[in-house]
Amino acid sequence: MKTLKVIKIGGNIIDNEEALNAFLKDFSKIESPKILIHGGGKLASKLANQMQVEVKIYEGRRITDQATLDIITMVYAGKINKDIVAKLQANQCNAIGFTGADGNAIVSIKRPVKTIDYGFVGDVVKVNTETLEVLLNNKVTPVFCAITHDKKGQLLNTNADTIASELAIGFANLYDTELYYCFEKKGVLKDVNDDNSVIQHIDSNNYQDLIDQNIIADGMLPKLNNCFYAVHKNVKKVCIGKPEMLFDINTNFTTITQ
Amino acid sequence: MKTLKVIKIGGNIIDNEEALNAFLKDFSKIESPKILIHGGGKLASKLANQMQVEVKIYEGRRITDQATLDIITMVYAGKINKDIVAKLQANQCNAIGFTGADGNAIVSIKRPVKTIDYGFVGDVVKVNTETLEVLLNNKVTPVFCAITHDKKGQLLNTNADTIASELAIGFANLYDTELYYCFEKKGVLKDVNDDNSVIQHIDSNNYQDLIDQNIIADGMLPKLNNCFYAVHKNVKKVCIGKPEMLFDINTNFTTITQ
Repeated sequence: MKTLKVIKIGGNIIDNEEALNAFLKDFSKIESPKILIHGGGKLASKLANQMQVEVKIYEGRRITDQATLDIITMVYAGKINKDIVAKLQANQCNAIGFTGADGNAIVSIKRPVKTIDYGFVGDVVKVNTETLEVLLNNKVTPVFCAITHDKKGQLLNTNADTIASELAIGFANLYDTELYYCFEKKGVLKDVNDDNSVIQHIDSNNYQDLIDQNIIADGMLPKLNNCFYAVHKNVKKVCIGKPEMLFDINTNFTTITQ
Repeated sequence: MKTLKVIKIGGNIIDNEEALNAFLKDFSKIESPKILIHGGGKLASKLANQMQVEVKIYEGRRITDQATLDIITMVYAGKINKDIVAKLQANQCNAIGFTGADGNAIVSIKRPVKTIDYGFVGDVVKVNTETLEVLLNNKVTPVFCAITHDKKGQLLNTNADTIASELAIGFANLYDTELYYCFEKKGVLKDVNDDNSVIQHIDSNNYQDLIDQNIIADGMLPKLNNCFYAVHKNVKKVCIGKPEMLFDINTNFTTITQ
């Protein structure tokens, strides 16, 4: 099978124009079929401030009311996504911007209200590969922001890491899919203060130990859960590290296997 | 040749949620390949006010500085475009949102500065049909907002009527293209105060008379110039009227021919 690279870039790359430009230039040169997923960066919070929309957080998670959903749709699907698409086109990479609504690519359901109502937040239920595959076969690169839809007309805010893993899983029977989470660190670190303490390999044998030792905690925990979920659903390769890991085989990064 | 319907809806339909929903429901049922182009509505000005970005107009034309371009990209390509795409999906119409940057569909150049600098405004130089055609052949409906790009990484604000005529022209050698400008009136009116005074037919014989009599003036003039340009470039059918003209053959509307 052909390889499909599913690459997610985080907010720190989005917020740094120079880093983003350099990344997109390199990304454009990747010859295999590829899908890019981008996070939101700080622009949404900045716009919320300007519009005096209160940012509501509950246990570290953003609550998405209608005003927040509108801001996210404007910033993620509008400003950030289209700027990336225009920059990729300038680098001769034929890209099309996507939410999960476009091409009905990612269907989710609004998270059920239990103790807390997270608002317009969607949990992915289905990835439809048909339209995306037509584009990949025609050398078009889909660029996803972190928005899905419920197929009933409602857009929903969805975690970008989850979108990346669901896309990689969705294509796993059509391609050898590789999932790359690019962020500002070299990988999962043994010591958060030492950027060179990269754990090169995590599997189900050492995962629980790393959690018990509190080495994997906070935001890294859901990210790694996404990684293991992907690995168990036939994604061939899952990596976490700086974007350099995509282009330089001598770079240190973390690989996740079963 | 197969028929391709290129349909533009104006701001008045966008601003009225009930009218928009009804239109999109009917639009979804059109069986031939189709492309939708939407204007901006009042939301961009509203957001500009909220963000305290000054709206600059010169001789009726908006000047697009960086802050205005950002707002337009957020509102047109983000909020409005994605809401329409999600609604079309709910109506079983497989749509993908587009700017001219997506799929490199519409390339423009920044309008040269003569006496006045209109800022980030693009004049269309090329429509690339390849990627769009692949989608149309797979029953996907492209939905365009009024943004193009210069293929050098810069998004540009472009008139939605122009985008519609350029798309219809761009596809004229592949399809029998039909161009429909849908707005709040029944067509070009002899008497602006009488909604039933529709001029059913305009061609190069009566066009100049209508201009001389001041019946065609102001905003209708560039719209009709777009129509005649399309007709001269092999677009098979050009019509102006209410959206009803698409679905009810007994409706009055204006047809433009050579």
